[in-house]
Amino acid sequence: MLKGDFTIPGESGYEELTLRLAKKWGADSVRDSDGTELSKDILDAGYSVYSTVCVIRGHNDWAKNHPEAWQQTFLMSEPVVAEGTEVEVPLMEGYFSEQFRIYDSPEALEWWQVFDRTDNCEIPAEKWSYRAGKGVVCIHGIDPWHTYTVNFLALRMWEEISMYNHVTNHWDSEHLVPIEPMHSSAAEYLLGWMDEWCRLHPVTSIVRFTSLFYNFAWIWGADESNRYRFTDWGSYDFTVSLPALKGFEAKYGWRMTSEDFINQGKLHSTHMPPDEKKRLWMDYINEFVTSLGRQLVNIVHSYGKKAYVFYDDSWIGIEPYGTRFTQIGFDGIIKCVFSGYETRMCAGVCTNIHEIRLHPYLFPVGLGGKPTFMEGGAPAEEALRYWVNIRRALLRQGVDRIGLGGYLHLTEDFPDFQDCIEKIGNEFRIIKQAHKECCPFTENNHVAVLHSWGALRPWTLSGHFHETFMHDLIHVMEALSGMAIKVSFIDFQDVVSKPLDRYHVIINAGCANDAWSGGKGWTSEVIEKLTGWVYNGGTFIGINEPSARSGYSHYFGMAHVLGVDMDPGDYVSHGKIAPKISEEKELETMGINLQWCWQMTDKSHVREKEGLFLTNKKTKVLALKNGKLAAALNSFGDGMGVYLSSFFYSPEQIRLLQTLIMKQSMIWTDNINIEAAWFPESRKLFVVNNSGSIQKTVIRCGDKSLRLTLKPYEMDLTTIENNIVEENHEKPFAAVGCLECE
Amino acid sequence: MLKGDFTIPGESGYEELTLRLAKKWGADSVRDSDGTELSKDILDAGYSVYSTVCVIRGHNDWAKNHPEAWQQTFLMSEPVVAEGTEVEVPLMEGYFSEQFRIYDSPEALEWWQVFDRTDNCEIPAEKWSYRAGKGVVCIHGIDPWHTYTVNFLALRMWEEISMYNHVTNHWDSEHLVPIEPMHSSAAEYLLGWMDEWCRLHPVTSIVRFTSLFYNFAWIWGADESNRYRFTDWGSYDFTVSLPALKGFEAKYGWRMTSEDFINQGKLHSTHMPPDEKKRLWMDYINEFVTSLGRQLVNIVHSYGKKAYVFYDDSWIGIEPYGTRFTQIGFDGIIKCVFSGYETRMCAGVCTNIHEIRLHPYLFPVGLGGKPTFMEGGAPAEEALRYWVNIRRALLRQGVDRIGLGGYLHLTEDFPDFQDCIEKIGNEFRIIKQAHKECCPFTENNHVAVLHSWGALRPWTLSGHFHETFMHDLIHVMEALSGMAIKVSFIDFQDVVSKPLDRYHVIINAGCANDAWSGGKGWTSEVIEKLTGWVYNGGTFIGINEPSARSGYSHYFGMAHVLGVDMDPGDYVSHGKIAPKISEEKELETMGINLQWCWQMTDKSHVREKEGLFLTNKKTKVLALKNGKLAAALNSFGDGMGVYLSSFFYSPEQIRLLQTLIMKQSMIWTDNINIEAAWFPESRKLFVVNNSGSIQKTVIRCGDKSLRLTLKPYEMDLTTIENNIVEENHEKPFAAVGCLECE
Repeated sequence: MLKGDFTIPGESGYEELTLRLAKKWGADSVRDSDGTELSKDILDAGYSVYSTVCVIRGHNDWAKNHPEAWQQTFLMSEPVVAEGTEVEVPLMEGYFSEQFRIYDSPEALEWWQVFDRTDNCEIPAEKWSYRAGKGVVCIHGIDPWHTYTVNFLALRMWEEISMYNHVTNHWDSEHLVPIEPMHSSAAEYLLGWMDEWCRLHPVTSIVRFTSLFYNFAWIWGADESNRYRFTDWGSYDFTVSLPALKGFEAKYGWRMTSEDFINQGKLHSTHMPPDEKKRLWMDYINEFVTSLGRQLVNIVHSYGKKAYVFYDDSWIGIEPYGTRFTQIGFDGIIKCVFSGYETRMCAGVCTNIHEIRLHPYLFPVGLGGKPTFMEGGAPAEEALRYWVNIRRALLRQGVDRIGLGGYLHLTEDFPDFQDCIEKIGNEFRIIKQAHKECCPFTENNHVAVLHSWGALRPWTLSGHFHETFMHDLIHVMEALSGMAIKVSFIDFQDVVSKPLDRYHVIINAGCANDAWSGGKGWTSEVIEKLTGWVYNGGTFIGINEPSARSGYSHYFGMAHVLGVDMDPGDYVSHGKIAPKISEEKELETMGINLQWCWQMTDKSHVREKEGLFLTNKKTKVLALKNGKLAAALNSFGDGMGVYLSSFFYSPEQIRLLQTLIMKQSMIWTDNINIEAAWFPESRKLFVVNNSGSIQKTVIRCGDKSLRLTLKPYEMDLTTIENNIVEENHEKPFAAVGCLECE
Repeated sequence: MLKGDFTIPGESGYEELTLRLAKKWGADSVRDSDGTELSKDILDAGYSVYSTVCVIRGHNDWAKNHPEAWQQTFLMSEPVVAEGTEVEVPLMEGYFSEQFRIYDSPEALEWWQVFDRTDNCEIPAEKWSYRAGKGVVCIHGIDPWHTYTVNFLALRMWEEISMYNHVTNHWDSEHLVPIEPMHSSAAEYLLGWMDEWCRLHPVTSIVRFTSLFYNFAWIWGADESNRYRFTDWGSYDFTVSLPALKGFEAKYGWRMTSEDFINQGKLHSTHMPPDEKKRLWMDYINEFVTSLGRQLVNIVHSYGKKAYVFYDDSWIGIEPYGTRFTQIGFDGIIKCVFSGYETRMCAGVCTNIHEIRLHPYLFPVGLGGKPTFMEGGAPAEEALRYWVNIRRALLRQGVDRIGLGGYLHLTEDFPDFQDCIEKIGNEFRIIKQAHKECCPFTENNHVAVLHSWGALRPWTLSGHFHETFMHDLIHVMEALSGMAIKVSFIDFQDVVSKPLDRYHVIINAGCANDAWSGGKGWTSEVIEKLTGWVYNGGTFIGINEPSARSGYSHYFGMAHVLGVDMDPGDYVSHGKIAPKISEEKELETMGINLQWCWQMTDKSHVREKEGLFLTNKKTKVLALKNGKLAAALNSFGDGMGVYLSSFFYSPEQIRLLQTLIMKQSMIWTDNINIEAAWFPESRKLFVVNNSGSIQKTVIRCGDKSLRLTLKPYEMDLTTIENNIVEENHEKPFAAVGCLECE
């Protein structure tokens, strides 16, 4: 049995348990957690030691003397309707006063702005004044009955991840202030502190940064029933500070304004297409984070330690898929994963070691406050449910390590969980071994996902699956993460400036004007290029409101390719072609075997979408929902447009997407709950049961077939010489081979 | 028993039937129909005679010699994707070739335009040429893979209403060409013809114009399965012609272009807010129609005949609610009605005689091709179903006459229909009599419906209920048409320029950017004025996407009043207040008895709408649909905002709306299927059962109460002295009185 490549969270006071489980799970490393320290017994047990450091917190003594070097952000007051020509706007109303404090130094005040949101115009400075005592801005000489807001700078008094853990676990320790490393005194302090830390932790072999400097934006409200006012895993709002703003101005010769961030109160969530200013700000922050990050990593290296980074929490500014990431010099990356796409997201980063943190975390309470390691919890089942999704992605692209986080003692009452993790660890190592031997077989299909972020932010929208489940694209990514195809992520600039002929399929899935559909990214140049590409044989798959843009004849810029358009109301007086399901033989003429497509028809998770209509009678209708168009195919030149009103991660829809992407495939199972991965050089065939029940299947691998029965969630590994049943196939398949490793 | 005020369609060959039914139904007038002529027996029977004339058709001999004076329109070709730098665009593809012919005279060609719809820009004339022989436009030197369309002028060869009847009834007579009265030779010809017609029809006492010159836009396609490519009862597209375009240019000094009408192929449906150019064109056409219409009416009057106009078919340019309508000099107006709002629409026109044409028409086939006067039809039931809606409107505002249309002999197999019409006729006359005696009681509630068309187009969207049922506002109008309140229609200019204090309630109901929500009509000035008005006690009721506008902090311009906003995607990362149904006692504090509101909760016709959220915790939630916000109330100053995600014409929702409009009312029934109207001076109380089953109710009228049981669809007329049961009421009611007749 293989061992190692497993990081266990050590727990002081539970040394025996730590060591017993370390052995059971085959751990080779032990780590501390947020709020814990490893005891000597554990440190001395011969495991390599991970230590977590969150650079910007835990310096309260220093911070108290340097309030100008606390982290900051812009906030917008609640809108207030003026009942006369004067109005008083309370700034902090609705915000969590333990997280934010008004930053009203004379210098900070220079950045404040006041807006008439009815007119969408700024109120000149002479019309408003700040009353520090009351925490309000008074505006005068204004239009009554308009709505007014104030953009103000706030100091962040409580590092957000620590705040979350503190509040959730009812800690009573001192609140940790996040310090702003853009402030030169803070940067200098931190470099000294890092050196000191390394010196004081000789046992630590790996410093795990959690992560560098800037938390994703997490703005809390005063109201506990609506605590999270704004949560965006990819947002740069918490990188704002006076030093950053001034540094930007010094560098570019012009100022960002508060409104460039506040954006009418909407902020710039990752779900919006980033504008040029946002991209520039991100680049500016990324350059700084890279530079100071490299200095910290250099210190770690100078002590002979490795530096890993956590691809969560304070990851903002690091951009692991950005061009500067390797300059920081991290030796590894650790990502907390629930799903297949996150596994790919970790695996694809250019670094030596990729480690995934499995779920559930060893906490009493899990997602959405549901019990995990307490009465009513079923952590083993939960772990397996995540694992089947992670496993199918791991079969496509391996990672180097796995691990857990949290409090080990909580597993004591759940021996089935302890067994389950042992099993998962073993499966992981078998898969890792296979990847060491050779690349898995990849079908000759290269899919590009087209969205506003492109290659900078592949394999994610903004956070975990359960945080972004309302977006079709996350379901698409999750489906793609386990498919035997090459997947790339491209943006609209890539479409215009790079060749598209490498791609067989391009997918665009989102809502009008969001970052995933693309909004203004849909220029004529993009449409022109994609249209020609489809005409010459490409398949364009559009989901929900693909290529949507306003002000044109068609709402979907690619309507002519999709054979489907959507009417936001302009065509209400126009007749529409009544959509009728096309016959199977019509679809077969398009080279598509649609036995799987029928499975999505009338499924409850197909979206009933208003306003969809066929642009011509030749478009083939795949599915209706309550009589309304839900899925269609349109031949266009040598290529094809595919429209789906929604995409939902399920065995049926994975198979549907697979069918639409690959007209024929090398590896195939006749049971949608079973998937297979083929490692041609080692001749290993992995077969996985993604369901919680016994499943039978025939697996076709090239011209061979294999019959198998798998237990719930089972992974079967066989070599192709065993148990082969010869079968006839009408069509020859491409030779088995390794196309390319990403 | 009252008699008269009834127009029967005479039918040649069925003289006896005509006369028998005329007697049974109490008819005093007999009319001919499209395609029929009255025989001498009928003409001699002593009834006054209506003759229908459709001015612009039936002149084929003249038309053949004046092809330049045929009616025209702009059409847009089907979009074509260019596969290279040249493309050929077939113009007539998809259009019904019996309706349209390419108008390619050198003068006509000057108005054609060619567009790149991908770029949304015009292709200069030197890059395209028309090939008459092939009916195509060739475009060269263009961007490949863009989509191209051609706007061209077409001659209309077949008057559309005649075309419809012809095709539906399989006539084989000659197609009637519509002639263009803007052409001076046509106008001259028509005036002569009118005179001649009057001279040749001495028996006719009333000339019923069907209607004047321009049909509503009805563009037919070649494909029978999608025949009606564009249907808009209120559109001016069929007023376009070379003479009209040139006349406009001569008058204003600048040209309208084809694109001003084609609008990217969307055309300017009535459901879009009209822009300034459209308003100007409408005004220009209206001025012409008024002028020539007056000359025709003068001729009719000079023969001692009356002139009525049909408020359907070729009504475009007449605008019965426009400022010029009375100048034409019509003696009466006739409107074909299915519903209450159409009844009010007819009743409110400033003219002497208002006649409503009841449904079903005496045709074998009715709406949507369903059987009426043939096997499988149930015309009596159909007539009653329409009648109950018409009746509740008639109780609010009377009309002068009723009538039927079609082929009388078809009723022979349906004696129950003959009886039903007799009963309807009698009820109509009893209601008319009551209106003669005094005005019905109106509660002290003045409601304004706010939309882009305002007072110019009250009591309609664009056509019949079954054509516009997808719009909430038609349901609202239908509900309002039978309520004991004053109703006005206002536009956005009215909000800014006129006092609002006369209104108690303002309703805005529509989808973002449509004419009913208002789109760009929602300026800051409008929001400012309405906000102040609500603050001072007004109630703003917003339905579906009220006050929606793009580019601002809030999507609903009135979000601060409604307490509800909608997120088109910008706030996906923001926390939302979880909506929970408010308790009844919370609502009572707002002065609203919401026993009826609960009836709408979880009803299937409440719309589940994505993206709605509460803007504050004070907003009271009235209804959820599948957990999503569906209805809410928000106190604002002394007034209130009400949000409904949808409105559906039903007894429950009529009562809901009534409750939201009137905090207390003089007349009230405890059964939602029963409504009552009170004529205070005559002391007549009408009680109607709108349902097809027996209903019991207590009717409260001021401080009196009455118990009644009504048969299906029954109308009960009593005077308030009879059968009174005294009951106690906690609150005194306003004195019974007649507020105002519209």
